Amino acid sequence: MNIEPEKPYPIYTLYEIAELLGAVLKVSNESDNDIRIVGLASLTSASDNRVSFLANSKYRSQLASTAAAAVILSDDDALFSPVACLIHEDPYLAYAKLSHYFNPRPKAVIGIHPSAVIASNVKIGDNVSIGPGVVILDHVFIGDNVVISSNSVVESAVTIGDDVTLMPNVTLNFGVKIGNEVIIQSGSVIGADGFGYAPLASLSEPHAWQKIAHCGSVVIGDRVEIGANTTIDRGVLDDTLIASDVIIDNQVHIAHNVSIGSGTAIAGCTGIAGSTTIGEDCRIAGGVGITGHISIADGVSILSMTRVTRSIKQAGTFASGTSMQTVTKWRKSAARLNQLDELHKRVKALESQK
Amino acid sequence: MNIEPEKPYPIYTLYEIAELLGAVLKVSNESDNDIRIVGLASLTSASDNRVSFLANSKYRSQLASTAAAAVILSDDDALFSPVACLIHEDPYLAYAKLSHYFNPRPKAVIGIHPSAVIASNVKIGDNVSIGPGVVILDHVFIGDNVVISSNSVVESAVTIGDDVTLMPNVTLNFGVKIGNEVIIQSGSVIGADGFGYAPLASLSEPHAWQKIAHCGSVVIGDRVEIGANTTIDRGVLDDTLIASDVIIDNQVHIAHNVSIGSGTAIAGCTGIAGSTTIGEDCRIAGGVGITGHISIADGVSILSMTRVTRSIKQAGTFASGTSMQTVTKWRKSAARLNQLDELHKRVKALESQK
Amino acid sequence: MNIEPEKPYPIYTLYEIAELLGAVLKVSNESDNDIRIVGLASLTSASDNRVSFLANSKYRSQLASTAAAAVILSDDDALFSPVACLIHEDPYLAYAKLSHYFNPRPKAVIGIHPSAVIASNVKIGDNVSIGPGVVILDHVFIGDNVVISSNSVVESAVTIGDDVTLMPNVTLNFGVKIGNEVIIQSGSVIGADGFGYAPLASLSEPHAWQKIAHCGSVVIGDRVEIGANTTIDRGVLDDTLIASDVIIDNQVHIAHNVSIGSGTAIAGCTGIAGSTTIGEDCRIAGGVGITGHISIADGVSILSMTRVTRSIKQAGTFASGTSMQTVTKWRKSAARLNQLDELHKRVKALESQK
Repeated sequence: MNIEPEKPYPIYTLYEIAELLGAVLKVSNESDNDIRIVGLASLTSASDNRVSFLANSKYRSQLASTAAAAVILSDDDALFSPVACLIHEDPYLAYAKLSHYFNPRPKAVIGIHPSAVIASNVKIGDNVSIGPGVVILDHVFIGDNVVISSNSVVESAVTIGDDVTLMPNVTLNFGVKIGNEVIIQSGSVIGADGFGYAPLASLSEPHAWQKIAHCGSVVIGDRVEIGANTTIDRGVLDDTLIASDVIIDNQVHIAHNVSIGSGTAIAGCTGIAGSTTIGEDCRIAGGVGITGHISIADGVSILSMTRVTRSIKQAGTFASGTSMQTVTKWRKSAARLNQLDELHKRVKALESQK
Repeated sequence: MNIEPEKPYPIYTLYEIAELLGAVLKVSNESDNDIRIVGLASLTSASDNRVSFLANSKYRSQLASTAAAAVILSDDDALFSPVACLIHEDPYLAYAKLSHYFNPRPKAVIGIHPSAVIASNVKIGDNVSIGPGVVILDHVFIGDNVVISSNSVVESAVTIGDDVTLMPNVTLNFGVKIGNEVIIQSGSVIGADGFGYAPLASLSEPHAWQKIAHCGSVVIGDRVEIGANTTIDRGVLDDTLIASDVIIDNQVHIAHNVSIGSGTAIAGCTGIAGSTTIGEDCRIAGGVGITGHISIADGVSILSMTRVTRSIKQAGTFASGTSMQTVTKWRKSAARLNQLDELHKRVKALESQK
Repeated sequence: MNIEPEKPYPIYTLYEIAELLGAVLKVSNESDNDIRIVGLASLTSASDNRVSFLANSKYRSQLASTAAAAVILSDDDALFSPVACLIHEDPYLAYAKLSHYFNPRPKAVIGIHPSAVIASNVKIGDNVSIGPGVVILDHVFIGDNVVISSNSVVESAVTIGDDVTLMPNVTLNFGVKIGNEVIIQSGSVIGADGFGYAPLASLSEPHAWQKIAHCGSVVIGDRVEIGANTTIDRGVLDDTLIASDVIIDNQVHIAHNVSIGSGTAIAGCTGIAGSTTIGEDCRIAGGVGITGHISIADGVSILSMTRVTRSIKQAGTFASGTSMQTVTKWRKSAARLNQLDELHKRVKALESQK
């Protein structure tokens, strides 16, 4: 996964790109091998110093008019390309890999910025970049090739593996464990206390709630990416667990003692309540709400904004909610829905009259 | 828009306020021109050193008992006011403008706080305020009259126009472009990588996902306001676009390559998935979820918590979901909904028996 | 509520724990009084140096096989315990209290870190901890035993009571008032401007919106806990109010001029629009959306992801939405729902044919 641009202003020839991708380069003229490429673009917007890609044959018609220098595509689609071809078994994957070579974002400066505040007992690996304003408290362990960006906070006893990147303004609370090759976007908070309280009303004490200390932590595997302003709470007794190869979008809320299986993808604005277990290779769309203390099997897909209130025992696709309508129709449907029980009774009455 | 209080402890006479607003002042006694006003208040809570407003004639009855020194209102409503009148064509707009004169928030101190970390090649305009703990990386361009508040981070190659305010703990990631007169509330993240990956399973590599580098940026127009803890992700190839005069509330999630047309308002907790285009002057309520790769026409209104899963081709108001009920009734409706297909068949059977 | 561990590496004997909790200790062997306990665990995962708890008699069967050193439980359940008993009237509450003695999180270091930036006119109480990178602006008042963690920002004129903890990267905007014993998790923003604008289109000015200055503040009572990345906006004219003993989870959005009554609990991802009043002792589940300018009575429970669009006048439980189904069944139900008005008419036609 550690694909990094090697040049400050990236330029690669088509020949070099074919080598990088393990793609077969098909050109109409041998000199095209040396065409200099400065970036990627879609088929419709590409100019003649860009590479494009065709990931799905159903868009094959866009090939005819592309101005790209070359297109990453499958063997079958190559027959229809008017421009140079970079033939690859999985064009979308090849495009994804190539994108990193043209990422304009500069690499982080290796070293510790003098404004960073780092406790004396922190262990720091090789080739680490610690940005301005970063705070790292006691007994933190940081692996090799780690980037901790500006104004992020790493509280005490945190462990960070190799090749991890924290973007600016990330918070890792006490004792959180982060694996290797993890990326955490800005504003995310890993390891806040969860929402756990014992009600006090029954004893008529002068408070409503007794907070429960969250003595567990958060453990995150390898190659996990966490989007911006996402929160993953620490466990109460045991740890909250995010397995390897999980990808999580922005503004996702993962409550205490949730466990997410490897390979699962969770889109933006989804919330998962406490102690729920999500299997491996699930696809959870945006805005989904999953209740606490349930289990979702491996390979489950959940459509956007679904309310999941019970365990799902085997793979499949699930949904709830109603279709969007104009407000006039929607008002009528919503009203009729509330009369549905009565309508059933009327149909039953009609049936009994036969 | 740059309406700023001119006095540290704002006091204005009614006469001065009429001048500021271009309102017609109607008093019962000429000495009332000199009544000293210290702030605004609603009709029901105002005391005699406050100005109130009546934006909607249907609340006209509240005029009778107000203790305000004066009321901003329309010509028609003025006939019913027992107190001094500030007559204006658009009372709500006049109130909105006046509110800035009584804002107690102190103006930011011009200058660069010594604790800020600013790269040597940053270009900074006139009358700029850079607060404590701010980090500004290489090759950033900052216009005139910009306020960057405490502990905000501006990554390299960002461009910020004139009269922009970043509240504390904002993050602008690499290369983001911000227009003039933009306000970004605390905790928001502009320019995080979007949620873009190629699946790896098909090639049986030992990872689930190949991250796609986000080589695009975020471009924000003029007079845009962004609420607290909102996230706007950078584009993959092209940029994510927020046109001028867009207003965005708290905790909104705008994914990569979304485009929002000018004048559109987006309320809290709404999420917009990747590559969707929203037209001009739309009104999107709170908690709405909009799927990716669709288009919403100009002038569309979407009610709260609607799931938008298809393009909307012309102006109108749209909704989905069901009405709130007591849990007993709701359980019955929800169960009946799942029997709806069967009910249709029963009705059809009855009909065929005729 | 100020229950704090008294030892750096907490170890307590069963006897000491019984004393701390006011529990009756029942052992089979007097030497068991001296068993040394290092932490808490669930009945099924506990080892012999841990205390567990049984909060609900319906899980009584788990007692038989527990390896815990002792279990906190009720008098009735004690009869079934094979291990030492800590008998308490409210086992869950006793467990919640005990959890704080075993919290591994180190206590904050008293004192002001030299990297913190604190205005000269800030008033600071006794036993206060101000972490690295913290910014505190003019005329802030801070009570005793307050912890302000790394890189948090407290803007000018904020008031903070006694025994308050701000976790890292919290923002308190201008003038916010925080009571005693309040905890705010990382990334939360208290006091951002709300989403208030007057439309300009009617006057054909060259902008779409006139921002309304938010001259109110946020006032938070005692013993309030606010989760991570939650936002509570300041009021326009009056203040946004969070009463004492309110608990708020992560990623909750509370708009301007909302008022929340004491003892109310609000779970993650819920949004409450402007000027709405929520009563005391309400239970609002996750992902709920509550519209603006309505009132919710005391003691109301709202199920997850409910859309609340009208006032609720008396206690009860409320819900909206549909049940989750497989996508095949759901498509059918959703389609049928849109034909519901027509179905009603068909049933009516059948009835009239009688």
